[in-house]
Amino acid sequence: MKTQVCIIGGGPSGLMLSQLLHLKGIDTVVLEKRSREYVLSRIRAGVLEHGFAELMREAQCGERMDREGEIHEGFYIAHDGVLDRVDLHKYSGGSSVVVYGQTELTRDLYEARDKMNGVVIHNAEDVTPHDLTSDKPYVTYRKGDEVIRIDCDFVIGADGFHGVSRKSIPRDAITEYEKVYPFGWLGVLSRTKPVSPELIYAKHPRGFALCSLRSQVLSRYYIQVPLTDTVEDWSDDAFWAELKRRLPEEVSARLETGPSIEKSIAPLRSFVAEPMRYGNLFLAGDAAHIVPPTGARGLNSAASDIYYLYHAMVDHYINGSDEGLENYSAKALARVWKAQRFSWWMTTLLHTFPDRIPYDQKLQQTDLEYLFSSEKALGSLAENYVGLPF
Amino acid sequence: MKTQVCIIGGGPSGLMLSQLLHLKGIDTVVLEKRSREYVLSRIRAGVLEHGFAELMREAQCGERMDREGEIHEGFYIAHDGVLDRVDLHKYSGGSSVVVYGQTELTRDLYEARDKMNGVVIHNAEDVTPHDLTSDKPYVTYRKGDEVIRIDCDFVIGADGFHGVSRKSIPRDAITEYEKVYPFGWLGVLSRTKPVSPELIYAKHPRGFALCSLRSQVLSRYYIQVPLTDTVEDWSDDAFWAELKRRLPEEVSARLETGPSIEKSIAPLRSFVAEPMRYGNLFLAGDAAHIVPPTGARGLNSAASDIYYLYHAMVDHYINGSDEGLENYSAKALARVWKAQRFSWWMTTLLHTFPDRIPYDQKLQQTDLEYLFSSEKALGSLAENYVGLPF
Repeated sequence: MKTQVCIIGGGPSGLMLSQLLHLKGIDTVVLEKRSREYVLSRIRAGVLEHGFAELMREAQCGERMDREGEIHEGFYIAHDGVLDRVDLHKYSGGSSVVVYGQTELTRDLYEARDKMNGVVIHNAEDVTPHDLTSDKPYVTYRKGDEVIRIDCDFVIGADGFHGVSRKSIPRDAITEYEKVYPFGWLGVLSRTKPVSPELIYAKHPRGFALCSLRSQVLSRYYIQVPLTDTVEDWSDDAFWAELKRRLPEEVSARLETGPSIEKSIAPLRSFVAEPMRYGNLFLAGDAAHIVPPTGARGLNSAASDIYYLYHAMVDHYINGSDEGLENYSAKALARVWKAQRFSWWMTTLLHTFPDRIPYDQKLQQTDLEYLFSSEKALGSLAENYVGLPF
Repeated sequence: MKTQVCIIGGGPSGLMLSQLLHLKGIDTVVLEKRSREYVLSRIRAGVLEHGFAELMREAQCGERMDREGEIHEGFYIAHDGVLDRVDLHKYSGGSSVVVYGQTELTRDLYEARDKMNGVVIHNAEDVTPHDLTSDKPYVTYRKGDEVIRIDCDFVIGADGFHGVSRKSIPRDAITEYEKVYPFGWLGVLSRTKPVSPELIYAKHPRGFALCSLRSQVLSRYYIQVPLTDTVEDWSDDAFWAELKRRLPEEVSARLETGPSIEKSIAPLRSFVAEPMRYGNLFLAGDAAHIVPPTGARGLNSAASDIYYLYHAMVDHYINGSDEGLENYSAKALARVWKAQRFSWWMTTLLHTFPDRIPYDQKLQQTDLEYLFSSEKALGSLAENYVGLPF
């Protein structure tokens, strides 16, 4: 098989790049290890920044998002029994975010790819990139007993943190930066009316909590838990009781509870691999960087990689310039690190750290007091939350 | 002896409060353990925020400051071989700071007190506050063999971190918060022309450096050193060589060196004692809180305490309201903690931390890159540097 751009990974990043390039007449093949059903069963992020939504529209996949997604012009920070609102629209100078589940978004991208006869190969086993430093790289995968080879100009590694792409780069050609937080998030999805039309991030001495949502009938709640906890430690009742304890009275009093339809614990971790290019392999999204979920930067960080790659490929194939490809890693990383910085700040602002000295606990409290006393500080939060410019 | 307000400590805080209260007809006595010569020989801060300068003018002590002090509308951050300017005037919405040595300012306050026959008792030994929780507190001190008693309504503890005031509060009536940084500043004062008309804060892999000044003929330079270093480890030549290494070429090339007229090492530390009131004792300035010098908050934090105390005393004696006294500790601490937060941020932004993991080094670098990419972030820095509103 032959293509121009072979994309490893059929998540939202890979699909969106495939769709964007197709619209410019650039040929792609998407290889996904899992089934489509599996990909669509993953519960992930739901807050899309302004620039991400724009990219969905450019990919001609924004119709349902614009119809069913919810524009959020602010969110709340609950602390010390009160609820303070961050007016994103005001402090970002008119921007907002769209709340639309990653599952829905991925479904829209699949449908768009199907409609255009995009090649998305599922259940591709043993995907392996080859000859990445040559100008004739190729990717092989296995389907049953058959090994299939795809010759291409470029390989895109959009196959997530555990994917093969980053791992196929020699260890001495890549530097990895990592930070592990001493806690995780226990998340519950329930078919209940969300307690608040806008997200509530709660700072509480017992630990962080988040009231999020996927739609007006689908709620997503989280509580900070020790890394030693397991899902089995938390009955639905215990979860709801603990969540209520961490919310101000005015919120917990109106919280609608119900059976969990998904329950999982995710550790909080930050990771960046540099550079994001090795020969003709370009990493994008979780394959190169992950953030703790606080501040909703994960999927949005992937979107900026896709934006830069999309324009770099268009410049290469249509405008005859390789500048975008040459600059890709530096440009993408500059924005990735800013998202890392913001996620770290939101995480340290709102979580309870078991080994924090009393002075640092007071600093954390002061950070919050300063935030709500300063238009400049609120402006900084808002511009990061709605997404820094690409 | 009898007075209304007995002020322990004849540094700038105590003198300024004494002067301000005098102008409102409120009687004070200032007790200072050391001689005037000793107080005036201490080399301290030199950057006065806008509100501090206003307070000096209100105390009728601003004339020489306004004539000889220098208005600084910005400062530089040197990093990665370049010099980036922070335009304080622009980003704070028109504010600035005044560079005027603490020694000069203290001299002006002494002269003003002398002119008005203010009572400032030097070489007061064994100063001891008594009966602080009664409505008839008093302070004793010794002069040679004689013990003298001063009856008063209120005692002000403006006698610094090591003073007797905070120590006279029972341990269970006060909470102390502390953070120790794993490095110190080696400072050199020299009669040389400052290398830059505005301050230069330098971030460098070898450690932080600061180019400051007291006047156009008096320079003050600092370099970050390990806590194990002593002044004897650093000849003048070694100091200048190391300072030059940490500055961009364009700065080090024009650095004028000369013999040090003062050389000392100060550890970097943060400290806050809560509350700032015990009965009729009110703590102010270093007696209650200290900050690392990065960002020049030390003397300026004392100024806001004095501002709140001044107005509280005027309310008590002239307007018949004790609200200001009741709220003093909470109000002062709210601003003190914001100054602590800013000092911590400037310190972590610019210093080399020996045990920082590589991820956190990248975050630090990103913090600086984000700062100079964002008007909001620069605005936040500027409003803190020129001083948050009282």
